[in-house]
Amino acid sequence: MLIVMRPDATAQDIERVNDEIRRRGWHPHAIPGGSRTAIGITGNPGAVEPEPFRVLPGVADAIPISQPFKLVSREVKQEDSQVRVGDLTLGGAAIHVIAGPCSVESREQIISTAQAVKKAGATMLRGGAFKPRTSPYEFQGLKGDGLALLAEARKETGLLVTTEVKDTATLAAVADHTDILQVGARNMQNFSLLEAVGETRKPVLLKRGISATIKELLMAAEYIVARGNTQVILCERGIRTFENMTRNTLDLNAVPMLKALTHLPVFVDPSHGIGVRKAVPAMMRAAVAAGADGLIVEVHPDPPRAKSDGFQSLDFSEFEKAMGEVRAIAAAMGREMVRLG
Amino acid sequence: MLIVMRPDATAQDIERVNDEIRRRGWHPHAIPGGSRTAIGITGNPGAVEPEPFRVLPGVADAIPISQPFKLVSREVKQEDSQVRVGDLTLGGAAIHVIAGPCSVESREQIISTAQAVKKAGATMLRGGAFKPRTSPYEFQGLKGDGLALLAEARKETGLLVTTEVKDTATLAAVADHTDILQVGARNMQNFSLLEAVGETRKPVLLKRGISATIKELLMAAEYIVARGNTQVILCERGIRTFENMTRNTLDLNAVPMLKALTHLPVFVDPSHGIGVRKAVPAMMRAAVAAGADGLIVEVHPDPPRAKSDGFQSLDFSEFEKAMGEVRAIAAAMGREMVRLG
Amino acid sequence: MLIVMRPDATAQDIERVNDEIRRRGWHPHAIPGGSRTAIGITGNPGAVEPEPFRVLPGVADAIPISQPFKLVSREVKQEDSQVRVGDLTLGGAAIHVIAGPCSVESREQIISTAQAVKKAGATMLRGGAFKPRTSPYEFQGLKGDGLALLAEARKETGLLVTTEVKDTATLAAVADHTDILQVGARNMQNFSLLEAVGETRKPVLLKRGISATIKELLMAAEYIVARGNTQVILCERGIRTFENMTRNTLDLNAVPMLKALTHLPVFVDPSHGIGVRKAVPAMMRAAVAAGADGLIVEVHPDPPRAKSDGFQSLDFSEFEKAMGEVRAIAAAMGREMVRLG
Amino acid sequence: MLIVMRPDATAQDIERVNDEIRRRGWHPHAIPGGSRTAIGITGNPGAVEPEPFRVLPGVADAIPISQPFKLVSREVKQEDSQVRVGDLTLGGAAIHVIAGPCSVESREQIISTAQAVKKAGATMLRGGAFKPRTSPYEFQGLKGDGLALLAEARKETGLLVTTEVKDTATLAAVADHTDILQVGARNMQNFSLLEAVGETRKPVLLKRGISATIKELLMAAEYIVARGNTQVILCERGIRTFENMTRNTLDLNAVPMLKALTHLPVFVDPSHGIGVRKAVPAMMRAAVAAGADGLIVEVHPDPPRAKSDGFQSLDFSEFEKAMGEVRAIAAAMGREMVRLG
Repeated sequence: MLIVMRPDATAQDIERVNDEIRRRGWHPHAIPGGSRTAIGITGNPGAVEPEPFRVLPGVADAIPISQPFKLVSREVKQEDSQVRVGDLTLGGAAIHVIAGPCSVESREQIISTAQAVKKAGATMLRGGAFKPRTSPYEFQGLKGDGLALLAEARKETGLLVTTEVKDTATLAAVADHTDILQVGARNMQNFSLLEAVGETRKPVLLKRGISATIKELLMAAEYIVARGNTQVILCERGIRTFENMTRNTLDLNAVPMLKALTHLPVFVDPSHGIGVRKAVPAMMRAAVAAGADGLIVEVHPDPPRAKSDGFQSLDFSEFEKAMGEVRAIAAAMGREMVRLG
Repeated sequence: MLIVMRPDATAQDIERVNDEIRRRGWHPHAIPGGSRTAIGITGNPGAVEPEPFRVLPGVADAIPISQPFKLVSREVKQEDSQVRVGDLTLGGAAIHVIAGPCSVESREQIISTAQAVKKAGATMLRGGAFKPRTSPYEFQGLKGDGLALLAEARKETGLLVTTEVKDTATLAAVADHTDILQVGARNMQNFSLLEAVGETRKPVLLKRGISATIKELLMAAEYIVARGNTQVILCERGIRTFENMTRNTLDLNAVPMLKALTHLPVFVDPSHGIGVRKAVPAMMRAAVAAGADGLIVEVHPDPPRAKSDGFQSLDFSEFEKAMGEVRAIAAAMGREMVRLG
Repeated sequence: MLIVMRPDATAQDIERVNDEIRRRGWHPHAIPGGSRTAIGITGNPGAVEPEPFRVLPGVADAIPISQPFKLVSREVKQEDSQVRVGDLTLGGAAIHVIAGPCSVESREQIISTAQAVKKAGATMLRGGAFKPRTSPYEFQGLKGDGLALLAEARKETGLLVTTEVKDTATLAAVADHTDILQVGARNMQNFSLLEAVGETRKPVLLKRGISATIKELLMAAEYIVARGNTQVILCERGIRTFENMTRNTLDLNAVPMLKALTHLPVFVDPSHGIGVRKAVPAMMRAAVAAGADGLIVEVHPDPPRAKSDGFQSLDFSEFEKAMGEVRAIAAAMGREMVRLG
Repeated sequence: MLIVMRPDATAQDIERVNDEIRRRGWHPHAIPGGSRTAIGITGNPGAVEPEPFRVLPGVADAIPISQPFKLVSREVKQEDSQVRVGDLTLGGAAIHVIAGPCSVESREQIISTAQAVKKAGATMLRGGAFKPRTSPYEFQGLKGDGLALLAEARKETGLLVTTEVKDTATLAAVADHTDILQVGARNMQNFSLLEAVGETRKPVLLKRGISATIKELLMAAEYIVARGNTQVILCERGIRTFENMTRNTLDLNAVPMLKALTHLPVFVDPSHGIGVRKAVPAMMRAAVAAGADGLIVEVHPDPPRAKSDGFQSLDFSEFEKAMGEVRAIAAAMGREMVRLG
């Protein structure tokens, strides 16, 4: 159920509605919009009768919502949500590119990569410190040292930083060193972690699980937003199919579908989405043409020697060339790409 | 095995190589290139020894080919193949768009659609006459009458025409009335049909099967080319995955992968690829940005009343708007879009 | 729509109903049952009004049918259908096993295999003569010679014979030499072929397509039955999924689902379903325990030297051992396994 | 690398090998067998030279292991591992059935179910207390109260108890009240949780992720065993495919594949595997026929009123009937089913 307030509703009117919701044991969620406020209801066990709300002062309408996701839905909020990270606005007219290595490996590696991707037009830096790996015997990241190196790269270049948060135990440390918390594909339905990042006020980049439906991705975002953290960016990163020539099948269909269903910004990870180095630039272009608000791309100074994901990482010159192509597509889409000073 | 001739090899040198291949009971396939000829060998039961060929006059090299597809492979022919249809060249600098209804329904419907899509910039007309349908009780097309209406629309507008050939029994009739033979997804591994269209000299648009790998698509094309018909256009049209919010999952990864593996032109069908009308234009743009050489799009004068696929067909104004967007993306890719006079 | 006749309805009553159906331009299909007849209607463009039929003499009820398959549905015919092949009854109390090589390779091979599988308890022989192959360069079968060898093996052993019919061009020849026409997975939606086998009166073993849903399999069967050939056996043979350790994923869920939805007999092909020789016996047992009416299993005198599918073929002693295990499971299911004299 | 000791190797010989492994910074893992001990090595960054180990006293052989899973591999330990839970032995000759509701809902519900499933032949009770749910607005379980009710049901009936552990925060509480820790499909690659249950000495039922390959399931088990907890039971519970008539596709192929690759016991969850109440008994039978060591089945006193998964839960009489059928299949497989006194 969504209570839509009139443009001239007062703060008192809104509080009155909230009280009515709480009196029933449910939870009100204010969703501020450009011209007026809407209030989502959660915690209700079943259908909610709209009548008792429609008669309250300041209420324009009470709309039953059929979809299992509510707060993230365009039905609840029509305008695009924008996520503020430092001085940047994600989900607005500008397209942003996050770039960097799969794993932080050394000071030299992360600083040189940060400088190169900044020069090529990226506005944010990625790099894994705590790495979830399929095998217990693979490189698991530099952990705390990796976080420190990311912070150093940020200081050096001014790039904002994102890194994956793997579990609740390391969440506080990761949140201290990073501008965006990345929730990886394997954790998309780790509900305890979703709730924990929902309790922070850090922006979250939520990756689609390898076999998650678009609807499940939206419900995972709902877990975070329901805890009060509305700063969520969704990320398509490829799904698992029978095709085995590519690492995953990048589902660009998800981009227009998500843009229609939700007000949250949508990013795409073409590196994991295809997993073939030479083909990554084509998918960067295609993602922007499909309507993505940004990209997250793996870049490494020397891909063949990367400790992880080298086969899908671009080197500096490949990335620079690809960024030029992306810029042309963005312009054709009527969108800008900002450059850090 | 591929025999690469020297640029200065004579016709006699080439014939000598062919003789050596035939003497072993195998088949030579000349693959003319810009600067020199290559000769593919088929019919060999296993690995071919390169040495006896390397010593022949005019031979530059004899290269063992590991992949199960040969004649369609970039290893065999590096330059892009171009398919000539009437005055058009597919697979060159220009991007071509085939548009029209799922099924030919009436004279009025197909003529008005042909005129509208031509005006919007399409260079070819599609329309189903013989329709393979999942249920025996669904509309199966106007059959012979549909072919005649397509021919009339071609005469009226100058648009070249493509329609699906469903079986060998109707191949001759379809070939008489159409410029491109379309082999549908369900028939991608109907080997008897592939062989039959391989015996014609009509261009073929070969659609990827709903659960076919990229490699299997190339092997299906190999069936056609091995019969002597080199005029093959590949078409990605979505694969079947667990995601059920969209009709199929359009696998745009296939575009850069195919362009790297084969010299054949690559088209994309965004209508079947996503199956959601409002989202088709986004996938038209994304396909071109990924590097596709053309599109095939469903357009209908009145989609809600279409006898088939109305839910994924654009109306005339939606198509015209989408074509404007595609033109901008094509320009950003450094490619042209021709307009029929 | 299904017209259910009363047990005491006369032939005249039934003919009256048929006339009413034909008068509307539709087609009646008599479905004889144990105690009474039902009449399916096909060819109707949309919903059928039940009232005009309910008032006719001898009519017990007129039931609207929601599912897109009709004639093959349990709603139309509650009792299990039994398919007669020679002296055998498929789909009854007895479980039948069809066994033999992927391809007929030589007289010696097919005769020795026929003798071995008969001794182990198989009642029918399989063997490919016309082989659809993914690559045009693979072994395509002995064709006409293969059919002749199958006929010879039948004469020698008394085993009934099944082989794949690949296209309409070879249908007559295959039908002349075989007791059951096998329609392969790649041809499950080759509707022209389905219609052609529907015109014969030979039993058909219809294999599920590699990415066909259970519902699509039933609609493919509907194509055959709608042409008048009710002797259809369905065959689950594995679907394509992300799991790549096995050739396909044998979907045994399909067995109880099909048994609930249709009256047709259900067989299982564990050889293609798992594609791993050592694991085939486990899946033979599981299929029978799930409720399958029979199995089709690949057996070869010398699997490592088979021209096709050797990696999934059992040798004679493996097959004999597996049949002993299957017999125990069949007994636990309260089903018999007949032996040819 | 696996060091295989001679049957007559002394404890001193074994300790010498361990020292050599530790001296290199790696970790030895003793794997006791019936007649002799093997020692697995983990923590080695790459290939291990076998020679320095082969010359040590008491060493029979040093075998390089190619697969990415080691400790759980049959190459490392040929005999079946048996997991002891209370007085029960899982993975031995007896087949065990765990049964109970999806969620613990009330004292009455869990006690009556425990009594009914015990009477029908189950030896363990299941019931969810902390429920991971796709939507934040669905019933999330009785949590601590649910654990207490499970403990009460155990005391009342003598059935051992399993429940899902959802995160590290609740692990200690769950471990206190349950005999087997269940790791759910969504957490199969929650590596922090796997490591945490690996630090306990409780038996673990590890469910296959909805899109996890068989190899990934084995690597998830490796995470647990590498931490020293060897009491792991694997559980196939259905994978996500394009088929949407069933909730998941139960991959019974996984049973013989896992039995060949690993020494760990293999269970099957037919309730989630097919998700259709009427069809669950068929899949219970098929799982045992495929070689499973046990089943986990959802049973509820009144399925239509269950708070979760009612559509796939058996009622008491359906379960009792199904258990009779399973007992017949188990006997045909030469396996016993014990009954609690």
